Amino acid sequence: MDFPVTRIKGGVGAARGFLTSAVSCGIKNPDAKRLDLALIHSDVPCTSAGTFTTNRVKAAPVKLSQTHLRRGDLRTIVANSGNANACTGMQGIHDARAMAKDVAKRLEIRRGEVAVCSTGVIGLPMPMARIEPKYDDLVAGLGPKNGTDVANAIITSDTHHKELAISFELGEHRVRLGGCVKGAGMICPSMATMLCFITTDAAIPRDCLQKVTLEAVEDSFNRITIDGDTSTNDTVLVLANGAAGMKPVRKNGPRCRQFGKALRWLMIELAKAVVRDGERVTKFVTVEVKGARTYLDAKKVAEAVCKSALVKASWNGGDPNWGRVLHAVGYSRARIREELVDILYEGLPACVGGLQADTPMDKLRDVAAKPEFRIEIHLNQGKADYEMYSSDLSPEYIDFNRSEYAYWKQARKDGLV
Amino acid sequence: MDFPVTRIKGGVGAARGFLTSAVSCGIKNPDAKRLDLALIHSDVPCTSAGTFTTNRVKAAPVKLSQTHLRRGDLRTIVANSGNANACTGMQGIHDARAMAKDVAKRLEIRRGEVAVCSTGVIGLPMPMARIEPKYDDLVAGLGPKNGTDVANAIITSDTHHKELAISFELGEHRVRLGGCVKGAGMICPSMATMLCFITTDAAIPRDCLQKVTLEAVEDSFNRITIDGDTSTNDTVLVLANGAAGMKPVRKNGPRCRQFGKALRWLMIELAKAVVRDGERVTKFVTVEVKGARTYLDAKKVAEAVCKSALVKASWNGGDPNWGRVLHAVGYSRARIREELVDILYEGLPACVGGLQADTPMDKLRDVAAKPEFRIEIHLNQGKADYEMYSSDLSPEYIDFNRSEYAYWKQARKDGLV
Repeated sequence: MDFPVTRIKGGVGAARGFLTSAVSCGIKNPDAKRLDLALIHSDVPCTSAGTFTTNRVKAAPVKLSQTHLRRGDLRTIVANSGNANACTGMQGIHDARAMAKDVAKRLEIRRGEVAVCSTGVIGLPMPMARIEPKYDDLVAGLGPKNGTDVANAIITSDTHHKELAISFELGEHRVRLGGCVKGAGMICPSMATMLCFITTDAAIPRDCLQKVTLEAVEDSFNRITIDGDTSTNDTVLVLANGAAGMKPVRKNGPRCRQFGKALRWLMIELAKAVVRDGERVTKFVTVEVKGARTYLDAKKVAEAVCKSALVKASWNGGDPNWGRVLHAVGYSRARIREELVDILYEGLPACVGGLQADTPMDKLRDVAAKPEFRIEIHLNQGKADYEMYSSDLSPEYIDFNRSEYAYWKQARKDGLV
Repeated sequence: MDFPVTRIKGGVGAARGFLTSAVSCGIKNPDAKRLDLALIHSDVPCTSAGTFTTNRVKAAPVKLSQTHLRRGDLRTIVANSGNANACTGMQGIHDARAMAKDVAKRLEIRRGEVAVCSTGVIGLPMPMARIEPKYDDLVAGLGPKNGTDVANAIITSDTHHKELAISFELGEHRVRLGGCVKGAGMICPSMATMLCFITTDAAIPRDCLQKVTLEAVEDSFNRITIDGDTSTNDTVLVLANGAAGMKPVRKNGPRCRQFGKALRWLMIELAKAVVRDGERVTKFVTVEVKGARTYLDAKKVAEAVCKSALVKASWNGGDPNWGRVLHAVGYSRARIREELVDILYEGLPACVGGLQADTPMDKLRDVAAKPEFRIEIHLNQGKADYEMYSSDLSPEYIDFNRSEYAYWKQARKDGLV
């Protein structure tokens, strides 16, 4: 970034005026003691912005939170792991509404100020009987706790919690910006879902906040892919409470742009953390497409390469297989000319003008054997670029996702199905 | 089919007047003795039709064969496995041309009557020094041999050869129709490629043949998916030599339509055989989308479901995970309404109106445990249907496709890279 930022402790609770809490309900498994219900709350009203899954099958809490955000500003987020409350029909809508209402009542705010987010197994009703008795503890536990409790409560098949917070000068005030994310690759054993919550104590009017949020998501979470599946629950929410005591920034003004840059940087770091922690992932690969005729062509090429099962399998094997990369470039539907395409691994040419380059195969193998590397694809047709962050696809990923029958067995014990 | 057909022996050589031959050149591995160069030749001129890969990166033999077919009719096919002659630049074009020319000279036909098809590793020049000395044996071996030699010579990672031939009454004449196919799922360790050769002794004018071929491919090879990748070499060629002694059929006439039905049936059977023999495949799944608003919507839904890594992983595990199916329906970009969607496994409802159905989970598991089953997805929004044939995705598939470094090592020994 072109201005100094300081890394600070915590994540979604690092900004002033935000309180967090998390409790254990046993949503997925009544015998497990892990945190699975979390609360983020600002002690003053906020402005808010968000983006939600483009899947036509939307989980009940997504529909509810979208409506609440459209009608006004959010101030509070209640989130659970263990059950996605997706494909649950009217019962699901009813349960999500009840979660918002019961939390709002205890916090003495309007129900419409509460966003609800769920992640976990799809198609099973929420075990509300295990959640409802915990609201009092959840609200009583609220405190200025930097948010690590929330980051822990929302993970599912993630191997660790993911959070990040920074502070920086915005005009004459030092502001804080922090967030947490969960999602082991957009997915999780159909415990689909990427959830990202970000808070700041900067004073950002809603129009500015929505604009910079959309731009930052486009450059971060829309550029990662583990397995190409889009969840029913994906949600990114940003809350700004102005507790830093500054005058609100102006849309399109220099402070709004500066805040946007910081938000974009934070989201890119969180997005990369999601890929690195992808299910059974062993490689982090940055794919950079250069010289496309249009932005859309560059994007198509990057997405085709990053989603190809064959390319991802070769990454898993540490194989610098530029033939498969070129092959995916070819079926991307972008306007490309094979004889102009160069493919480089960490700057070493593997393919020049569509043909095998002179670089010794052993050197390319050394690059592909690394846990992180960069592939550049030069289309040499124009000036548009696009960068994506991707991972390999491992035999262990498939194995991990073969069956989630265990969840159904638990649901039957719970009398839910 | 609505008329009787008789299964006959062999495949691409079963129709009268077609001769076949195959030899071993050691294209992939000089020490291996397997057949890897094949020839199909009609002793009289043919009409011909074909479809080729939509990948923008096209192998040299695809470009050559497309040109030959556009300019006139094909009569002969020379095909090799072990090297795809793709991403090989001007040298590749030169090599493909030489293959057509050298074979044409020995058969005393025009070079433009010869199609060249290659399948195997991408990005390595053809080992022409091992191929050229075998042309004489290849041509000398031509004989009425029903074509199993060709079916064997063109396979790569396929576990067995795939061929089929039938005879049926067309007007007052009994005609034969046969073919072979290779491709362990459009792919093969980047030894991408689906090749299908079909011959008939019916007299089918070119306009009729092209029309019924395109229609049959749309209903067969365009409806299978193993891993979603499209090869640089995919080719379907149909040759008709009229050796049955009949009067040519008329385009859009009843005999043309009847021939089209037989061709469609043959191609669907061959396409299904490709899926069943897909790389490390353990399940054959038919996905039938019903009640879409448009044909395109139905197709989008079927493709999204059949290509989802998560859905395919659940099939591998024998898990009747309708939540993942619905989730893929949702991101298909088709116009769907979650609350109208029904999902059935072999007729047993798993999801009704977007919600879990009453069918006991054990019964659904019994279906999903079978090696072959059918999933129906009722969108209940219109009248358009679409059917696709798909397979699971196994840990072994990824493992199998991790590395093809061995081919590069051989190429280095050959002095090709």
